[in-house]
Amino acid sequence: MSGNNFCLGLGIGTKSSKGDWLEVYYTKPVFEPCNSLIRALAGVVGYEGGNQAIEISSDQLADLSKAFGAVNAQDQQEIAEALQGTEQPLVLCILQDDDKPASTPEVYLKLTLISQRIVQPHGTNLDGMFGLLPNVAWTNEGAVSLEDLPMRQLQARAQGKLLDVHSVDKFPKMANYVVPAGTRIAATSRVRLGAHLGEGTTIMHEGFVNFNAGTLGTSMVEGRISAGVVVGEGSDLGGGCSTMGTLSGGNNVVISVGEGCLLGANAGLGIPLGDRCTVEAGLYVTGGSKVMVLDDQNQEVEVVKAGDLAGQTDLLFRRNSQTGRIEVKTNKSAIQLNEELHANN
Amino acid sequence: MSGNNFCLGLGIGTKSSKGDWLEVYYTKPVFEPCNSLIRALAGVVGYEGGNQAIEISSDQLADLSKAFGAVNAQDQQEIAEALQGTEQPLVLCILQDDDKPASTPEVYLKLTLISQRIVQPHGTNLDGMFGLLPNVAWTNEGAVSLEDLPMRQLQARAQGKLLDVHSVDKFPKMANYVVPAGTRIAATSRVRLGAHLGEGTTIMHEGFVNFNAGTLGTSMVEGRISAGVVVGEGSDLGGGCSTMGTLSGGNNVVISVGEGCLLGANAGLGIPLGDRCTVEAGLYVTGGSKVMVLDDQNQEVEVVKAGDLAGQTDLLFRRNSQTGRIEVKTNKSAIQLNEELHANN
Amino acid sequence: MSGNNFCLGLGIGTKSSKGDWLEVYYTKPVFEPCNSLIRALAGVVGYEGGNQAIEISSDQLADLSKAFGAVNAQDQQEIAEALQGTEQPLVLCILQDDDKPASTPEVYLKLTLISQRIVQPHGTNLDGMFGLLPNVAWTNEGAVSLEDLPMRQLQARAQGKLLDVHSVDKFPKMANYVVPAGTRIAATSRVRLGAHLGEGTTIMHEGFVNFNAGTLGTSMVEGRISAGVVVGEGSDLGGGCSTMGTLSGGNNVVISVGEGCLLGANAGLGIPLGDRCTVEAGLYVTGGSKVMVLDDQNQEVEVVKAGDLAGQTDLLFRRNSQTGRIEVKTNKSAIQLNEELHANN
Repeated sequence: MSGNNFCLGLGIGTKSSKGDWLEVYYTKPVFEPCNSLIRALAGVVGYEGGNQAIEISSDQLADLSKAFGAVNAQDQQEIAEALQGTEQPLVLCILQDDDKPASTPEVYLKLTLISQRIVQPHGTNLDGMFGLLPNVAWTNEGAVSLEDLPMRQLQARAQGKLLDVHSVDKFPKMANYVVPAGTRIAATSRVRLGAHLGEGTTIMHEGFVNFNAGTLGTSMVEGRISAGVVVGEGSDLGGGCSTMGTLSGGNNVVISVGEGCLLGANAGLGIPLGDRCTVEAGLYVTGGSKVMVLDDQNQEVEVVKAGDLAGQTDLLFRRNSQTGRIEVKTNKSAIQLNEELHANN
Repeated sequence: MSGNNFCLGLGIGTKSSKGDWLEVYYTKPVFEPCNSLIRALAGVVGYEGGNQAIEISSDQLADLSKAFGAVNAQDQQEIAEALQGTEQPLVLCILQDDDKPASTPEVYLKLTLISQRIVQPHGTNLDGMFGLLPNVAWTNEGAVSLEDLPMRQLQARAQGKLLDVHSVDKFPKMANYVVPAGTRIAATSRVRLGAHLGEGTTIMHEGFVNFNAGTLGTSMVEGRISAGVVVGEGSDLGGGCSTMGTLSGGNNVVISVGEGCLLGANAGLGIPLGDRCTVEAGLYVTGGSKVMVLDDQNQEVEVVKAGDLAGQTDLLFRRNSQTGRIEVKTNKSAIQLNEELHANN
Repeated sequence: MSGNNFCLGLGIGTKSSKGDWLEVYYTKPVFEPCNSLIRALAGVVGYEGGNQAIEISSDQLADLSKAFGAVNAQDQQEIAEALQGTEQPLVLCILQDDDKPASTPEVYLKLTLISQRIVQPHGTNLDGMFGLLPNVAWTNEGAVSLEDLPMRQLQARAQGKLLDVHSVDKFPKMANYVVPAGTRIAATSRVRLGAHLGEGTTIMHEGFVNFNAGTLGTSMVEGRISAGVVVGEGSDLGGGCSTMGTLSGGNNVVISVGEGCLLGANAGLGIPLGDRCTVEAGLYVTGGSKVMVLDDQNQEVEVVKAGDLAGQTDLLFRRNSQTGRIEVKTNKSAIQLNEELHANN
């Protein structure tokens, strides 16, 4: 227990009728907790180092509250007090290191770290997380295991009530865990826990953000941010636009969008974009698209694969409406462009 | 209090723990109420003219009910009676003129006027409304202020319940305020209060309608109607199609769709369309797109910017699948077309 | 009552205040019930053959439970027991033949058969179903008739509660009736009752599945499966992609997707696809699109309408990014292709 600790969280969650964790809600995880806090908690819950998700009983909350108080962790103390008397499952998850997660509560803690903007996308080790996330029915009565679902649906019906199933997924929607400051999320069902929304981000109804992905600052998002995709400050995603993910599609390049970019409505992006780039509405640019490079005089320079322009700034991708050709216009002269294009040959 | 009055509404709403209005529900606003109704209410609530959102107490409902009854406003009387005994915040909003709104209850009244088809989109002054609409967490327990949210989420959890956050937005979904007659709305989360759905309109799951926008009659909408966009009788919007809004994109032209039009699936529209126009599936037409005009004999007439064809009728926009060129086919001869195209030069 | 019986189901549902059926939930329909089961039930409910939706009272459940038990129909017996004491409307729907449905409970039974994978899409007679499905407000308190809605909304408000309207539609969302084994449905609002999801299917947030349509096996669906469209084992639909339905668009060809296909993100499909076909991201292929056929040496073979390639295997549709031309690449030589293309002339 020396050196840096990674994080800890006091969580309240849901288990299946079999006793398996379905999900855990951490109101306010502590990033890099100090050793004195760890030591104070260790005495209460029997923590002996390493990464542990320690199940606790409601009876232990009073002692935890004192332990938090003893090291002036007021936020945590308030949480422990608010939870007193609960009959729901509780967990204290302490992660000494950012190793790959080993349990459902650990995965939920790490996804919460991202959504609370404590770490950025790709900023914590999520290896193997899929196998640790059960597929859950997310209902108006909270998380329900798929095994328990049919009988609970029938029983609710018999009582004249509805067990409303909003989603059947390994990931819950983020907004039931955290709503980051300075954001709007028009349809919360479209932002998964583990998304990162920068302050000033609006996710409109057609927007979508997967886990380990999102925006770093102000953005108007009406398109889809796939898993792993990060969008820089001041970039907008038009309605229905697509960013290629790495989970499917046979693509290993991680797509990203720089600062001050615009993806037009119904456009698509299969390459990483630098700053101040635009993809015209309705145009899908994949890594393999052959594009004619035009210089600042609209002169043809060379045909290249769009993937070769990955990360370059100040590009405008468009389809010539009279020739059907995909063109990329830059603000540089032909000579500059030729040098750049061949710099990596 | 002479002449025309604009409208009034008796509303029940929600306030934050600080006492700020979060939203107001008006079951049935009265458009252009007569002076005798205004006078009857004025005595009860102390209205002295102008535009006022007057907070009332539950105790005043009996007197309001009598006042409504005295002028045979039966619908309003029923509302006042149905609300009796409530502990929720109440407001009587009387707007003498259609000035720009000055309070949250006024904005909600005006948005409700549109969604109840009492006024059409662009039919009421909404200037400055954004500043009057708080960003709200819309939950299964109604509107919750963002400040109050985290503690309420934690408390609900402690009690084994879920405070389910459906949306974090300045606008609520329309269907919790009004479901207009003769409509279907497959996913109500995608139609904001302030949308106008004509009788016979179906909004499918992929459809979307923003405020101050919508359809005037029968329409099958599987695409997105952006803020300010109005769609005429008998026009259909295919799945995932896009209409450019004026809030973003640097475009000041208000997009509209005439009668009997079809926007194909995944198509896009950046110009106002006249009647009986079609945009082919998958084609995005922006104002700056250069399109080859073809006459009724499929002869080439001229290349023009699509924006120059704004409002013209009987156009078919398509991308030639062999040349990649955007073409617009008309039912007119080359001579007629040339005259029309140059009429405004 | 001899020979094959089609199916039966014991359902619990909702009626409007007028006494009309709004919807019926069948936990576990019995396909092709044996005559002994039919006879056992007939005695309890007075069934005399044919297709009948027989309303029953809660008092009859004990006798029904016995009748089920007498023929060892344990699942059904459990349902009858779970429902005992309910005050909700009950129905026993017995369909001797797969005739077109004659009542709301019959339509719900047939849609449930598809969603429970008991029959495949197009596997049961749904003629005239639209007229039998009322348009319903689907709320957090279950199905509400549109006539009853405004007063219930107002009353809920007066009590400080929210009657939350999720959808106004003739079809409910499937997940409140059945969640098929081995599926994920990220946003259940986008999958209608009557959809068929094969084991191993994931419907992501942007996915959509209409009734009488769906997947037969493993699929990642991030696009829209229109009414009637069936997708074969191992095919993926990219984000926002479109499949043309037959309900609108003036198209009578039933679209389908073979096995091992990929529709790219924001692509569109207007022809039936054979196995192992790909449509490039962002490309919309309609039946009328003229496409240049390229052989396995990338040699031009012939221009054909895409509709002429319906059902063929191993095709890659793409738009040439330098000429704007739609091309289809095959893995066959020019000679083979010419023979195939002209085989049906």
